[in-house]
Amino acid sequence: MSDRSEAPVVPVGAFEPPYYVAVFTAVRTQDQHGYSETAARMEDLVKDVPGFLGMDYAQTPGGPAITVGYFRDADALTQWRCNAEHRAAQMRGRAQWYQSYTLHVAKVERSNGFARAEDPQSPRAD
Amino acid sequence: MSDRSEAPVVPVGAFEPPYYVAVFTAVRTQDQHGYSETAARMEDLVKDVPGFLGMDYAQTPGGPAITVGYFRDADALTQWRCNAEHRAAQMRGRAQWYQSYTLHVAKVERSNGFARAEDPQSPRAD
Repeated sequence: MSDRSEAPVVPVGAFEPPYYVAVFTAVRTQDQHGYSETAARMEDLVKDVPGFLGMDYAQTPGGPAITVGYFRDADALTQWRCNAEHRAAQMRGRAQWYQSYTLHVAKVERSNGFARAEDPQSPRAD
Repeated sequence: MSDRSEAPVVPVGAFEPPYYVAVFTAVRTQDQHGYSETAARMEDLVKDVPGFLGMDYAQTPGGPAITVGYFRDADALTQWRCNAEHRAAQMRGRAQWYQSYTLHVAKVERSNGFARAEDPQSPRAD
């Protein structure tokens, strides 16, 4: 984790199905006091959930944010959903940080990935 | 569609399960020539697929992009996957626009949404 900020940004890869995705789409309010600290804490906490596989996040400035969490099975998702600190954060989110959001929980049936062959550590020849 | 740009940005809502999500996470290359035209064309084309329910998109500047497409059933997704123009765009994406990507296709088992009660069209009282 110590070298996370130096790692190249790559999307979480494809796992062997079945696994679960939790797709959380949101538009935030203007009051984001405390948000980033809580988000960082949640990102640390979820890593302790057995069966947590990874997370993707993207945010258009001033627009929607999408978080996708990947979990090995429904039990892992249930454990995360019932985490007391996570539940408190969700409640604060509804009270303060989110204008609107949607959560879709789904079982992955197929997946595939693509990565360009070139080594990102090598300088480009062109 | 003519008033799309005036509509407030809200995430696609929760549908009655089961339905399908296609989660496409990507990091793009520096060569984005032609990308935005093709993306706009795909956004129009997918609306003609019977069973297409909606789409969410977020992009962190210089970072990952996440597209989530919502479909009523697997047949709708198959129809979109087999669309000739879409397949040509995917091929060009691998050749030119994407550094890496992952696609997760999943069947939604539960979903829920939240929206702040206040009317976004009304001026704030405070």
